[in-house]
Amino acid sequence: MSFDRMIEKIVETQNPTVAGLDPKLAYIPSYILDGAVAKYGKTLEAAAAALLEYNKGLIDALCDIVPAVKPQAAYYEMYGWQGVRTLAETVAYARAKGMFVITDGKRNDIGTTMEAYATAHLGKTDVFGEKTEAFGADALTVNGYLGTDGIKPLLGVCEAEDKGIFVLVKTSNPSSGELQDQKMESGKTVYETMGEFCEHWGETIMGKYGYSGVGAVVGATYPAQLGEMREKAPHTFFLVPGYGAQGGGADDVAPAFDKNGLGAIINSSRGIMCAWQKEKCDEHDYAQAARREAIRMRDEICARIGEIRANG
Amino acid sequence: MSFDRMIEKIVETQNPTVAGLDPKLAYIPSYILDGAVAKYGKTLEAAAAALLEYNKGLIDALCDIVPAVKPQAAYYEMYGWQGVRTLAETVAYARAKGMFVITDGKRNDIGTTMEAYATAHLGKTDVFGEKTEAFGADALTVNGYLGTDGIKPLLGVCEAEDKGIFVLVKTSNPSSGELQDQKMESGKTVYETMGEFCEHWGETIMGKYGYSGVGAVVGATYPAQLGEMREKAPHTFFLVPGYGAQGGGADDVAPAFDKNGLGAIINSSRGIMCAWQKEKCDEHDYAQAARREAIRMRDEICARIGEIRANG
Repeated sequence: MSFDRMIEKIVETQNPTVAGLDPKLAYIPSYILDGAVAKYGKTLEAAAAALLEYNKGLIDALCDIVPAVKPQAAYYEMYGWQGVRTLAETVAYARAKGMFVITDGKRNDIGTTMEAYATAHLGKTDVFGEKTEAFGADALTVNGYLGTDGIKPLLGVCEAEDKGIFVLVKTSNPSSGELQDQKMESGKTVYETMGEFCEHWGETIMGKYGYSGVGAVVGATYPAQLGEMREKAPHTFFLVPGYGAQGGGADDVAPAFDKNGLGAIINSSRGIMCAWQKEKCDEHDYAQAARREAIRMRDEICARIGEIRANG
Repeated sequence: MSFDRMIEKIVETQNPTVAGLDPKLAYIPSYILDGAVAKYGKTLEAAAAALLEYNKGLIDALCDIVPAVKPQAAYYEMYGWQGVRTLAETVAYARAKGMFVITDGKRNDIGTTMEAYATAHLGKTDVFGEKTEAFGADALTVNGYLGTDGIKPLLGVCEAEDKGIFVLVKTSNPSSGELQDQKMESGKTVYETMGEFCEHWGETIMGKYGYSGVGAVVGATYPAQLGEMREKAPHTFFLVPGYGAQGGGADDVAPAFDKNGLGAIINSSRGIMCAWQKEKCDEHDYAQAARREAIRMRDEICARIGEIRANG
């Protein structure tokens, strides 16, 4: 019902990071692509098979040192329902390997429809009287533009199934400020208002480490706002995109953490997935290159957290 | 690149409505459910097969009188990747029958990822050098919380593929006002600001009927705001949910139309899908019950538009 399971994995691995699984064919070694095309031709089926093999290699190489993965739904939908099947299989594979899975779908809708999304990604679907997990992630990113009744159905599922959500607050993209930075008559910005909603929505699903099951997405590309929101939303766990390929570094993500070094999980997608291309290593070594980058990222961020804690 | 194709279908059928395809097993006649379970057991595969058969019946009964369908992605995701395959098959079936298809996904993300959603739902995916439609809808609903660079990738695809998007402006749910009705320092509400964004985003993809390819979702449950936005966003076509089961009637949707009776398409989902249950007719007659309700809705709304035009 909260992020306790995720926090315990972070503490266990001593690693507050999440590996984004946003696979494109362009990132995948040619031996995997060639194998899939040999089997299925130049089809969506082949693309979906290549994505799955690539993801499994990454998960195998990361599961003992990285607490969580974050598959981005868009990159699976791009390859049709076959790609979406790979999303479901990726979620199941990562969970079987003990990882916490955050499906990045940024879903949103009115109450009755949001129930369907909550069921799809976090709950269990009633299929002719049998309860079945459709996608079965541990957490889902959502968009709060529709207000409380677009969020409430998720809270019930989070409580019943021990899951969590991350609400978009201040996103990492260049134009996020067009709406999110605008000030309301109240004197508060839109993102600040959304952060307050998160604190409020989380009240009924508080965990034992001081954080609720309602987290927030706050981008590493806006470190000042990250620090501001850490103070203003003390019970809200942050999912922080924008590290690595988008430009954020360890100094930028530092303000996301509380004085105990908790409170945030930092995502890197392309940085980890494409490490083999950056390293220019043998493509068969792609998963170990991802592991090397994940360790480098962990060490960099943990060193920075260590300084924060040392300075009280 | 605009909504011209949709507008021409509305004019051709003399019907400014769209049938929402938000299927749940509870809405589906038992003979369809029983047939699916007999073939596939109590599985997601059976659910997906039942959804598809049900949808095809509705599409067959509606395609000559209703210009468009709007499948809601959540209800397909609820039935796993098998349900998502039914979404793809439903989109293809409706398009083959000449209907305009609006996938209601309310997708949103940062630029690079939004490109993937745009490709998935409106564009063509590059699969080993071959271009393939992953889902192939005519239009997609999206959420503009992330600002311009979350929308731009869609505009390129809309222009290249003759597609459109509907951005959430003022949603039909009870708590939509929590964020959307708040006033900014500018004196404008959040929904009004989002409406201005729509006008701006649409400038480069204007159609020949005065409306761009960037539409807006504005709920029938807020008729005053509907009228306000019709004036303030004169080039933005409205997708209007909230008619029927959510409480909106013909008087409520009337302000969405311009003086020519254009400018809006009114959605009914449960009202049409569940007409057979409301009528208590033979379940084998479910599709004809949907047709009867669609005709009733069309006539009710067109009568109201006729009054508006008569009164200048």
